Amino acid sequence: MVFQSSTYGKVLVLDGVIQLTERDECAYQEMITHLQLCSIPNPKKVLVIGGGDGGVLREVSRHSSVEKIDICEIDKMVVDVSKQFFPKVAVGFDDPRVTLHIGDGVAFLKAVPEGTYDAVIVDSSDPVGPAQELFEKPFFESIAKALRPGGVVCTQAESIWLHMHIIEDIVANCRQIFKGSVNYAWTTVPTYPSGIIGFMLCSTEGPPVDFKHPINPIDADDSHVKTKGPLKFYNSEIHSAAFCLPSFARKVIDAKAD
Amino acid sequence: MVFQSSTYGKVLVLDGVIQLTERDECAYQEMITHLQLCSIPNPKKVLVIGGGDGGVLREVSRHSSVEKIDICEIDKMVVDVSKQFFPKVAVGFDDPRVTLHIGDGVAFLKAVPEGTYDAVIVDSSDPVGPAQELFEKPFFESIAKALRPGGVVCTQAESIWLHMHIIEDIVANCRQIFKGSVNYAWTTVPTYPSGIIGFMLCSTEGPPVDFKHPINPIDADDSHVKTKGPLKFYNSEIHSAAFCLPSFARKVIDAKAD
Repeated sequence: MVFQSSTYGKVLVLDGVIQLTERDECAYQEMITHLQLCSIPNPKKVLVIGGGDGGVLREVSRHSSVEKIDICEIDKMVVDVSKQFFPKVAVGFDDPRVTLHIGDGVAFLKAVPEGTYDAVIVDSSDPVGPAQELFEKPFFESIAKALRPGGVVCTQAESIWLHMHIIEDIVANCRQIFKGSVNYAWTTVPTYPSGIIGFMLCSTEGPPVDFKHPINPIDADDSHVKTKGPLKFYNSEIHSAAFCLPSFARKVIDAKAD
Repeated sequence: MVFQSSTYGKVLVLDGVIQLTERDECAYQEMITHLQLCSIPNPKKVLVIGGGDGGVLREVSRHSSVEKIDICEIDKMVVDVSKQFFPKVAVGFDDPRVTLHIGDGVAFLKAVPEGTYDAVIVDSSDPVGPAQELFEKPFFESIAKALRPGGVVCTQAESIWLHMHIIEDIVANCRQIFKGSVNYAWTTVPTYPSGIIGFMLCSTEGPPVDFKHPINPIDADDSHVKTKGPLKFYNSEIHSAAFCLPSFARKVIDAKAD
């Protein structure tokens, strides 16, 4: 469903759950992408699982070092609806580095040769129904395999206000599978449940990645601004701040992560 | 109105607007209080305008240096309802250092001798109806007068997602009146409009106050935990992080603040 809201502009809804609005999509798309890509030097090959609206692609393509962007979206209608109603989001598909695969992300990842990607972004819906598998261990194992040593993954990871039990499980799973580092970050997205969304940021064994201190800033290089418009939300300060957790969440997550 | 919600516990509503819920009140009360009191050495005299639910009092009284806490609340029913339905919030009134004044905060402040307080907290409702004056210049001038040199004020300051035009005005007013420093911070409160709330943090001319780097940490001293329970939300990391703004807000606020 797509509808026009009085405060948030056009809204995209899947299975009764708000996926994005014109007003606040910048927060989600910019943070899920740049928290990760600004933390490693020269990302070249990036895979997006889900993200059929194109917003994450728009953000990935701001990075001039990137040579290849694969996206695997299970639902072609999301792509079509986004192109029709959210052109400023779907603009991500215009980048010639993008290859769109329509299909199951789990199956796609299994077929990826070992060590292919520098970064994987999992832009999924909630862990009920079709996206359930994207929060489970075998899926994380496939991601770890698809990444180069010291490669990074960022997955949508729910709300610390509402889903601490789910987050606890995700963190524990990631801790077993990603031998580099395992971190939790969050940001404000007014139209998501409880007004925030979290991200798991992990790296595989290899060159160490310090997600909390970005080494590949995007703020300075503004060649991407001409085609995609300026960054609205992300900057290096809010990058580091996103890893600071309220005490109630820190207690649970620190017990499982590093 | 008070009602029981399935996810957020008991909810307090004034004039149709949610004021607090049992689940997320910790974020608001702890941040509006400690962002300020942890930024100055040895706060002794504190004034709370509004805050009749008692939650801010609970947080102020965690600071052992504090000797006197005045509160001026316009609506006695808020106090009574909080004591009846929100005992863990109203516990703030039990502290012997607290003196409750029922009346108009604007008039109360005018009668305060110059330089009385180390800190003033304005825990108001939105700038429509009864709280309108609490966002205007004459009120800020009264606060500045009531504070000692290098004294601090923290006021509820709406949402960067929804109220940038109001925030712009508040920042411009504060910049004129508070000659120490003027800063904007924000935090997550799921049940407030857009899921966040902002705070103006200002100091008067005098010993400089660096709000972004707390020098009076409360994390370590835990004598207050016995009576008030542990801090759920606030810690020194999230204190500093609260001042990191999304780019769209930084652009507007930095133009007016420091």
